[in-house]
Amino acid sequence: MPARIHDLAASTPEMLAVFGDASLVGHALAFEAALARASAAEGLIDPAAAAAIEAACGEAFDLGALATAAAHAGTLAIPLVAALRARADLRRAGAGAAAHRGATSQDVADTALMLQAQAGLALLRRDGGRVVDALGRLATAHAATPMLARTLLQPAAPTSFGLKAAQWRAGVVGALDRLGREGAQAIVLQFGGAVGTRAGLGNRGEAVAARIAADLGLGAAAPWHASRERVAGLGAALSILTGAVAKIAGDVALMAQGEVGEAFEPQTPGRGGSSAMPHKRNPTGCQIALSAAVRAPHLAATLMSAIPGQHERSLGAWQAEAPALAALFEAAHGAVGAMAAVTEGLQVDAAAMARNLDRAGVGQDLGEAEALTRRLLQDAP
Amino acid sequence: MPARIHDLAASTPEMLAVFGDASLVGHALAFEAALARASAAEGLIDPAAAAAIEAACGEAFDLGALATAAAHAGTLAIPLVAALRARADLRRAGAGAAAHRGATSQDVADTALMLQAQAGLALLRRDGGRVVDALGRLATAHAATPMLARTLLQPAAPTSFGLKAAQWRAGVVGALDRLGREGAQAIVLQFGGAVGTRAGLGNRGEAVAARIAADLGLGAAAPWHASRERVAGLGAALSILTGAVAKIAGDVALMAQGEVGEAFEPQTPGRGGSSAMPHKRNPTGCQIALSAAVRAPHLAATLMSAIPGQHERSLGAWQAEAPALAALFEAAHGAVGAMAAVTEGLQVDAAAMARNLDRAGVGQDLGEAEALTRRLLQDAP
Amino acid sequence: MPARIHDLAASTPEMLAVFGDASLVGHALAFEAALARASAAEGLIDPAAAAAIEAACGEAFDLGALATAAAHAGTLAIPLVAALRARADLRRAGAGAAAHRGATSQDVADTALMLQAQAGLALLRRDGGRVVDALGRLATAHAATPMLARTLLQPAAPTSFGLKAAQWRAGVVGALDRLGREGAQAIVLQFGGAVGTRAGLGNRGEAVAARIAADLGLGAAAPWHASRERVAGLGAALSILTGAVAKIAGDVALMAQGEVGEAFEPQTPGRGGSSAMPHKRNPTGCQIALSAAVRAPHLAATLMSAIPGQHERSLGAWQAEAPALAALFEAAHGAVGAMAAVTEGLQVDAAAMARNLDRAGVGQDLGEAEALTRRLLQDAP
Amino acid sequence: MPARIHDLAASTPEMLAVFGDASLVGHALAFEAALARASAAEGLIDPAAAAAIEAACGEAFDLGALATAAAHAGTLAIPLVAALRARADLRRAGAGAAAHRGATSQDVADTALMLQAQAGLALLRRDGGRVVDALGRLATAHAATPMLARTLLQPAAPTSFGLKAAQWRAGVVGALDRLGREGAQAIVLQFGGAVGTRAGLGNRGEAVAARIAADLGLGAAAPWHASRERVAGLGAALSILTGAVAKIAGDVALMAQGEVGEAFEPQTPGRGGSSAMPHKRNPTGCQIALSAAVRAPHLAATLMSAIPGQHERSLGAWQAEAPALAALFEAAHGAVGAMAAVTEGLQVDAAAMARNLDRAGVGQDLGEAEALTRRLLQDAP
Repeated sequence: MPARIHDLAASTPEMLAVFGDASLVGHALAFEAALARASAAEGLIDPAAAAAIEAACGEAFDLGALATAAAHAGTLAIPLVAALRARADLRRAGAGAAAHRGATSQDVADTALMLQAQAGLALLRRDGGRVVDALGRLATAHAATPMLARTLLQPAAPTSFGLKAAQWRAGVVGALDRLGREGAQAIVLQFGGAVGTRAGLGNRGEAVAARIAADLGLGAAAPWHASRERVAGLGAALSILTGAVAKIAGDVALMAQGEVGEAFEPQTPGRGGSSAMPHKRNPTGCQIALSAAVRAPHLAATLMSAIPGQHERSLGAWQAEAPALAALFEAAHGAVGAMAAVTEGLQVDAAAMARNLDRAGVGQDLGEAEALTRRLLQDAP
Repeated sequence: MPARIHDLAASTPEMLAVFGDASLVGHALAFEAALARASAAEGLIDPAAAAAIEAACGEAFDLGALATAAAHAGTLAIPLVAALRARADLRRAGAGAAAHRGATSQDVADTALMLQAQAGLALLRRDGGRVVDALGRLATAHAATPMLARTLLQPAAPTSFGLKAAQWRAGVVGALDRLGREGAQAIVLQFGGAVGTRAGLGNRGEAVAARIAADLGLGAAAPWHASRERVAGLGAALSILTGAVAKIAGDVALMAQGEVGEAFEPQTPGRGGSSAMPHKRNPTGCQIALSAAVRAPHLAATLMSAIPGQHERSLGAWQAEAPALAALFEAAHGAVGAMAAVTEGLQVDAAAMARNLDRAGVGQDLGEAEALTRRLLQDAP
Repeated sequence: MPARIHDLAASTPEMLAVFGDASLVGHALAFEAALARASAAEGLIDPAAAAAIEAACGEAFDLGALATAAAHAGTLAIPLVAALRARADLRRAGAGAAAHRGATSQDVADTALMLQAQAGLALLRRDGGRVVDALGRLATAHAATPMLARTLLQPAAPTSFGLKAAQWRAGVVGALDRLGREGAQAIVLQFGGAVGTRAGLGNRGEAVAARIAADLGLGAAAPWHASRERVAGLGAALSILTGAVAKIAGDVALMAQGEVGEAFEPQTPGRGGSSAMPHKRNPTGCQIALSAAVRAPHLAATLMSAIPGQHERSLGAWQAEAPALAALFEAAHGAVGAMAAVTEGLQVDAAAMARNLDRAGVGQDLGEAEALTRRLLQDAP
Repeated sequence: MPARIHDLAASTPEMLAVFGDASLVGHALAFEAALARASAAEGLIDPAAAAAIEAACGEAFDLGALATAAAHAGTLAIPLVAALRARADLRRAGAGAAAHRGATSQDVADTALMLQAQAGLALLRRDGGRVVDALGRLATAHAATPMLARTLLQPAAPTSFGLKAAQWRAGVVGALDRLGREGAQAIVLQFGGAVGTRAGLGNRGEAVAARIAADLGLGAAAPWHASRERVAGLGAALSILTGAVAKIAGDVALMAQGEVGEAFEPQTPGRGGSSAMPHKRNPTGCQIALSAAVRAPHLAATLMSAIPGQHERSLGAWQAEAPALAALFEAAHGAVGAMAAVTEGLQVDAAAMARNLDRAGVGQDLGEAEALTRRLLQDAP
């Protein structure tokens, strides 16, 4: 299933795959398989039934039919578990009834979403690291390259391009740190059964949960079906990271203005052209990051608005999370990926920087720019 | 291309098709065909070239390849126009150069988006009308059915269910009116060329624009490439409509609580079940509307944040509009469609209403509920 | 009570007064006085009691004490009505009991808020009209002044400054139109009593409501206590107007950059300076408008999030409206007022425009800029 | 200066004082005094001049005049520093020129805002701790009190009220942890001079900054004038904390419904009444928290939208932060303070819980509710 035109323009094929249906259903089935294994290990279901379930989880499912059935049922788990049970029964009569035992739809949905988030986080860390590295190189190379600092969009006083790059880098480093912290909090197993009491598991709930978590490579946690703060925290971190790279994009685009001419996105054949003006060289990478930063705060706020849901599973609020979180990961990776390419290939015109600084007539005193650049570069990536 | 699971759960197949790639590319080609016809009619291009372009616009294009190329180029129009020119040239040597003449990428993108909006609006009007009609019937039938009014979630004083339904209806009627007004403002042709001056058309720009608009069934307008207020106004109207139907959903869900039991969603086989609790009958239609209403305000605000873009075409802000507007139409139709079914089939338990009212001990004085119900029903749908 | 530093920096003394406590309490008392007069005219209360209430409404109330008591009670109306009754009783024994008869706290709060909105709208119309007029003059004077159009922040093609100003103006005209429409819908009397049935008024509710509305200069309406769409519509219009003037502010600030130098805010002694850089001349008016436009979409979305409240008076959602609507009016007037001064005194450097255009090497073809300017100026202000 | 009626209703006098003008100006003067002391200690200014500045910082300033002048100048620092210099000169001729040396307006504004945030955080920690303690007591007392769990607002399966309270508590504990982490990141000194290079301090900038930070009790940091991620992170944490307590408020309000009757806010004389219905007992504490949670996500998103500002000091985005952050602290403390009182005095009707559970006919199996309650209570407050 190819991604939609608007989605591809704003994100990356990799992140769109992470939040695509094949990935979602795959993670949901991985949860069901891990649950079956754990239940068998704890003596709750027949190991042969578990083996049949596990094998059935490895089969191919019809994503289009599942999507339609999920929309009708109001939740993916109902048609998915029904299909899984039917297939397990084919492998071993009666095995199907042992599937999904002790679990509820939200266990599947939340755990699958967190497995998607885990994969999404890895992509952001990888390409965020590229931005940090590239900015570190720019900051080192230009620690003493004078340029005009602008405040309130007016000529202000001298600074160095290295300090500017080091401050950009510090913003991204801090944002990646936050994302790591919030990810570690949020990306954990959800396993609570119908209402979060782990009923029906003969007091083996904790043990089953520990086995599923280890199996899936997720942190263990008490059921969090009705505590959505950590999902919102993850979303906030994604939005803030998007803002940190968009800050760079905005500055680069301003420096790339015709009358300023101090820095430019790298040129890529076929990218940044205009259908009406062949001479144009548009800052397309910056555009993707800036566009993501218009959207991301509102998506993060959606997750915050969803926190105070009713009782043990909210009506409407919880269901608003998955599309907003997916859109946040997609927008963030569009932005980070684009700015990785922009920062790695940034073309800096130090002569133009010097010329604009001279013309501003604000002197050449760089203050402690070099020392501050070095200090900022000491922060771990 | 089937829709994603999360999208289908939150919207409708019809609206997802309206904002799907096939529709987008189809509208973009409709614009190019109309431009060619208009340009030929105004003597700007060879009629034979226009015929070749028009014929090429009717061919099938590879949506997946276009999506990938658009993501690389930074805009759909560049690969689409290139493909169109190549095909037109095959039909008539040299015809391709006459395609897209005087237009720019944003002309294609904005006009196609507005054609999608026009189709989306028709769906919302149709199903919004169903909600209004169903609520009108409920209000009429229950104008004198006493029930307990609750304020601040506490028992307050008597009202009638008819007045409640009539007030729900008034909210939807007003929201549909606003949507109609904002749609009439926003859904117009965008045709300004590279920077909105309609250069290169030999002073036939106004005439060409009038022809394209008539051809596509859109209102004519001066170029609005850099005036995005009307798109934001349309988004606000969509969000407010979503809120109006979610208001109903919230009230119905509260009335459907086990301890209250006054009204229920209609039962549909296979809908509203639970993977862990077979006895459950979940208000799935209300859930869709409430979930949409968590998301919609943030999506509408995204469009407002995109208004103050730079100069003649903004970097990032403009590009944030299309995904947000599409998501708004999708969420709004998910909500309106779900609540059309809920209101048409609502099961009202007047005896339970009377019982809850009696128990509250707040008397039986319905005040002017009946007269107010009649008055509210006079508002045109 | 002077306004807070941050509020004054972002708004205007006039609008802060409109949404200040003296105004709020004054409007609340005006409602109570009008209710007493209407109730007497309809024979529901003793005219002498009404006269005592009316006279008491004209007295001075201790705003600080009311604020503290309102915070404790959870609503302003409770302590205000208690104080009013005590004062009316002093004037005429037993008159107090006739005050507030048939009304509830929300009637007072909503009606007072709409009277504030009415006054706020007048300020926005006045200063929005100044922006429209000033832009009309600029567009006329510069219809043929060539300048460089920029798209995606890159040099694009020629346009005229007049067309740019005419497009700015069109955005503001459209936004003021929307504000007028939404204001006409939203700014109406709220009078429904405890739960919106107008109980306890002996079927004179409609007549009483009509009299109060006429008395206060508000439109009449059915009770809208639980239909909050129109408040959200008003908020959306305020946010969109803020965006429309911030669009101008952003463009002016970009044109005022040191390397561009095409247009400048008027200089006002003591305004736009820097505590560290005496040479600076900051675009402070543009800053106010841009800052308002960062905040306004989120404030408007707050009102949209408040639509789907529970039953006959929501718990929390309704109460979120007044501070958000006040902040929107304040931010909008800060922006519109600042840009009225900026557009009225804008210093245009046509020579710099010509120079930047020449350097861009994109020719001098203004297309149909003059005709489009004339067309856009025909739109009524 | 008393707070506005709407502000007092939504926040607390304590937090309003923290973000009031007296506090703001006091912190700004504390910064100037610390800067003077540090500059003298590093030999940059005459110790006698520093003493005169320090003494002048202890004088009373006219807040109303400062507010008006700040609004005109576009920044508080300009009139404040001018007034401070005049006063220092009166104490010692020429001393004024040594004030504010090496600093810029944003240094004053950001540092003062962070000192306000530090004080605000202490209030939230104090009252958040009360909520955590109260919920711990409720969870312990009711670990085995059966009640009906509701999912999607429908009767679902048994749980215990203790587990419900323990999960509420876990949400607040996690949110306070996040607030502590984000506060530790964000609440640091800002000291960078005109453009963040600490020019004009003879390479003593780092030493001066370290002294000011120690003096003010703030963490030291490199200049962060153009890196606003941490302010947004703090805002996100405030919004999430507000959501965590609003989750409790929503559940309590649903349990307090007339037909449910399982738990109630404590009664406070004069609180929660109705101006039209004397029998009512409204959940006013829950209302404050729920209302704050409608607003907070949008305020937090405002700070995120402000991240990508231009160059060394943004035009408009930075200026949007202070009012949004103040409103967030105010709303969060309104919510946390209200829910501290609600949770400390919560009236639980275990018999009603048992009755509603019985009527639902979903059995009595509490699963592992007690064990999960104990586990959740182990988390540090």
